[in-house]
Amino acid sequence: MARQDRAIRTRRVILEAAASVFDELGFDRATIAEILARAGVTKGALYFHFPSKEDLALAVLHEQVLDIAVRPQQIKLQEFVDAGQILAYRLRHDAIQRGAARLAIEQGSNHLDRKQSMSAWSSFVEGLLKEAKARGEVMESVNVRDTAELFVGAFAGLQMMSKAFSDQGDLSHRLTVFFEHTLPTIAVPAILAKLKLDPERGAQLDAELRSQADGEDADGGEDAAEAGAALLDAAP
Amino acid sequence: MARQDRAIRTRRVILEAAASVFDELGFDRATIAEILARAGVTKGALYFHFPSKEDLALAVLHEQVLDIAVRPQQIKLQEFVDAGQILAYRLRHDAIQRGAARLAIEQGSNHLDRKQSMSAWSSFVEGLLKEAKARGEVMESVNVRDTAELFVGAFAGLQMMSKAFSDQGDLSHRLTVFFEHTLPTIAVPAILAKLKLDPERGAQLDAELRSQADGEDADGGEDAAEAGAALLDAAP
Repeated sequence: MARQDRAIRTRRVILEAAASVFDELGFDRATIAEILARAGVTKGALYFHFPSKEDLALAVLHEQVLDIAVRPQQIKLQEFVDAGQILAYRLRHDAIQRGAARLAIEQGSNHLDRKQSMSAWSSFVEGLLKEAKARGEVMESVNVRDTAELFVGAFAGLQMMSKAFSDQGDLSHRLTVFFEHTLPTIAVPAILAKLKLDPERGAQLDAELRSQADGEDADGGEDAAEAGAALLDAAP
Repeated sequence: MARQDRAIRTRRVILEAAASVFDELGFDRATIAEILARAGVTKGALYFHFPSKEDLALAVLHEQVLDIAVRPQQIKLQEFVDAGQILAYRLRHDAIQRGAARLAIEQGSNHLDRKQSMSAWSSFVEGLLKEAKARGEVMESVNVRDTAELFVGAFAGLQMMSKAFSDQGDLSHRLTVFFEHTLPTIAVPAILAKLKLDPERGAQLDAELRSQADGEDADGGEDAAEAGAALLDAAP
């Protein structure tokens, strides 16, 4: 493995270890010692990539945003539903998403910007809804900014509730209830009838995205990461 | 003032001071010293009522649940809307609600039961929706348990988002967006047309409830507290 590839992989290993510690203990109780133990790297390697615990937390939040992605669908509004169902799936199975979710929710008076991921998500969802509206899929009465923020805020609470009651086991179901209750006031009837809301969709979409990302890596492509970076820049 | 009355007031003063410290610093960073300074009571008085910081936190969460109340309305579903708008108002203005909200959201590995307030709220809302359904106000297709939990989960996230972006300044608006998007799939059309969703309703309802409670205190009545206690018992 080239030295650069190895550094990238070490960085990812450290980030996943840090995310799992943040997920379990929260920012305040997380220790560098515990992160080192889980990552199985030296102190020197960790500090080379991340000078402090705050840097680790910010990198986890940043990595989460880079991971935002949906597969293009014929109906744009389907991508809105899919973005939610993929995230619900990953909050159950992906260390980075789980750690970032807890960091984003904690209100600790440390210097982390907990608004970052909410702003990035709202902008991403607003973009999807705007395009869906331009295509005539969304009712004229919908204020896309308000609706995007409703989705992001409600999602944050539903995942918190699901975490408390079932460690995210019922999050996909809760999200489906949200969509069933809100889509009839968002989608025009002809589109509403065609949307796929089943809670199992998240697992399938996640698998498709992963195999797609592997293919791009082989080509040397970095489209997903570039889209994520553009998204971060677009956040207010 | 009789000795018992004085003890009740001292207890409330301590609870409000503790709630404001929990709201600002969170459970982990809150100190008994800071709570004593804000309450202006002696260490002995505080420990007489609350042997530990955990006892204080549990009492704040308990007090919040006792505070749940709505004024009876001709349309039962209006009480569902009102419960949300009163809480949104109190999260902006009431120390106990603000402190309890932060405690309920924090996932600290302390022994607080963060599910308590979510369970109590879900049961309360489910009761309102059940009665509304029995009166024919709610569509047959609605699963009242799912819908009650959607409301509680979404509310938790919306208040968290509002806290981060505007210190609860826009929570009533966010809640109105939630109701506008969900009530068309909950209420039958004739009821939907009559529901009052304006964000200013919270302030007015809070004032009415307070003057009502003062009247009951004068009568020696404790109906509201009894209803709250029953509600706690009913929580799973």
